[in-house]
Amino acid sequence: MGMEKKLILDMDTGIDDAMAIAYALGSGKAELIGVTCSFGNVTNETAVRNTLDLLSLLGAPEIPVCRGAERAIGAESFTVSKGCMDVHGENGVGNVTLPHRGTPCDTAAADFILEAAEKYGQNLILVPTGTLTNLAAAIRKDSETVRKIGRIVFMGGALTVAGNVTPYAEANIWNDPEAAKIVLESGIPMTMVGLDVTLKTLLTRDIAESWAEMGEAGRALSEMVCYYIQHEYEALGCALHDPLAVGIALDPELAQTHPFAMTAVTKGEAAGRTIAHSFPHQCVNPSVQVALEVEPFAALFNETITGLFKRLMETA
Amino acid sequence: MGMEKKLILDMDTGIDDAMAIAYALGSGKAELIGVTCSFGNVTNETAVRNTLDLLSLLGAPEIPVCRGAERAIGAESFTVSKGCMDVHGENGVGNVTLPHRGTPCDTAAADFILEAAEKYGQNLILVPTGTLTNLAAAIRKDSETVRKIGRIVFMGGALTVAGNVTPYAEANIWNDPEAAKIVLESGIPMTMVGLDVTLKTLLTRDIAESWAEMGEAGRALSEMVCYYIQHEYEALGCALHDPLAVGIALDPELAQTHPFAMTAVTKGEAAGRTIAHSFPHQCVNPSVQVALEVEPFAALFNETITGLFKRLMETA
Repeated sequence: MGMEKKLILDMDTGIDDAMAIAYALGSGKAELIGVTCSFGNVTNETAVRNTLDLLSLLGAPEIPVCRGAERAIGAESFTVSKGCMDVHGENGVGNVTLPHRGTPCDTAAADFILEAAEKYGQNLILVPTGTLTNLAAAIRKDSETVRKIGRIVFMGGALTVAGNVTPYAEANIWNDPEAAKIVLESGIPMTMVGLDVTLKTLLTRDIAESWAEMGEAGRALSEMVCYYIQHEYEALGCALHDPLAVGIALDPELAQTHPFAMTAVTKGEAAGRTIAHSFPHQCVNPSVQVALEVEPFAALFNETITGLFKRLMETA
Repeated sequence: MGMEKKLILDMDTGIDDAMAIAYALGSGKAELIGVTCSFGNVTNETAVRNTLDLLSLLGAPEIPVCRGAERAIGAESFTVSKGCMDVHGENGVGNVTLPHRGTPCDTAAADFILEAAEKYGQNLILVPTGTLTNLAAAIRKDSETVRKIGRIVFMGGALTVAGNVTPYAEANIWNDPEAAKIVLESGIPMTMVGLDVTLKTLLTRDIAESWAEMGEAGRALSEMVCYYIQHEYEALGCALHDPLAVGIALDPELAQTHPFAMTAVTKGEAAGRTIAHSFPHQCVNPSVQVALEVEPFAALFNETITGLFKRLMETA
């Protein structure tokens, strides 16, 4: 594609991750050079499978998909929660059957990120929308190389609003608070797109239904997102969690951000909360720009992914 | 005094409240027309006693002091926590003995606030630095009159940082979450000065010690604040919680604020947390300006209260 900006998505591929892939492919603002997989909405194995299937469905079977962390730092295993299975379906994509296509690449997620950081530097944009486990692994392995990445925008956390797993914790942080702590305290500049803004960008059922006649890809996404809306927010529509992180990564002016010295609570009842340090001596490096206000996004999102669906119909 | 701006402090008079009274009297930017008492650091009875004693000590025995709420909305009683007794001393003023002087006025706190709102309107500044129980009572009684107040700035809550009573709750909100919910959801414009900023404005022990030679008032405040520093933050100095709220009320440019549709959690493990509403349909009225960044305040604070101590020494 030859675009100057390169994009890596790092995700636990469920339904809003699927929307994020479609948005990234439809935007034309950066070349998606790979998807690295974590866990959360689904297991790492299922995230890899879903990503391969979705990239093929969306006309981009050539994009590499990397296996990544299978469980949280220090954890022995990971099991998908009942809540996630309800919201994303048992297969993570709203129980829509996608043809299985493609195989993952041999490079592990953290290495793929580090190699791309070395190769593309300031032109690389990294958007984690699952647990921060792969990014934490890359930082532990070679933080100076991670620091070369031009822009890191993650979906996760909740600073000013309640969590969605506990009163405090948002799912991506809840699933690996230790990884979140490593990433947030790394001092590496990044943007946090949490529930503070993602719950303010809702997509209505009408819009999701309108995709049903837009070819194989439109039909599949329509089914998934209608399932998601039905099982999550119903009347309000669904939050554009992961697509918004990609949206802000590609168009930073969509959000207003404020700098904080962030961390993640790893123990006790507040575990999984993203929170700012209290005292000035802890705040030497307020390196996390937290998005606290957001522009309307649903129309841009819809325009972008329906543009993709239409191009796919023309080339089919 | 004839100043155009009128100020009411509404407080649970412990040590940082004492500092706030001294700051208000020293500032010369608004006329302190009354202090209404709540509870928290101490009981309402002790808050009234301490306020009378402090106003006399600080050369303002004529200022009316009103009794107010003795307990949280719906509660049967209130007991001062062990933590508060440790931090503020058993008498609320660091176990410093103040001569008992004066008697409270007959008007109850909520009525005093409403009468002043009617009389002074836009020229009235109200600064609650204890529980929000008295303000909630005034709002329940006559919210339209409360709306006439020119500026309401309260000390309380924590939006982006941890609490100081639980991982979530700041003490003033913790002591009456129902009252906080009524106030925050009232739609009345106000500014929240919470732990987000008060823990960033610290006063060192050196400064507090320097007041010891500044007459009776300087000596008493010095003893109290040294007690407070010793029992709360030690090496860091002490947070200027309540004085900062008065500071921002009198000089709004000291803080950068951001609008949120705030509420308080009243039940469960997050009880006492101040939090923003998540969804746009809940956010029609983001009427609370939350201070998230603050300018240095300790030097202005010290200059203001030592100015008062010196004037008192001259007139003694």
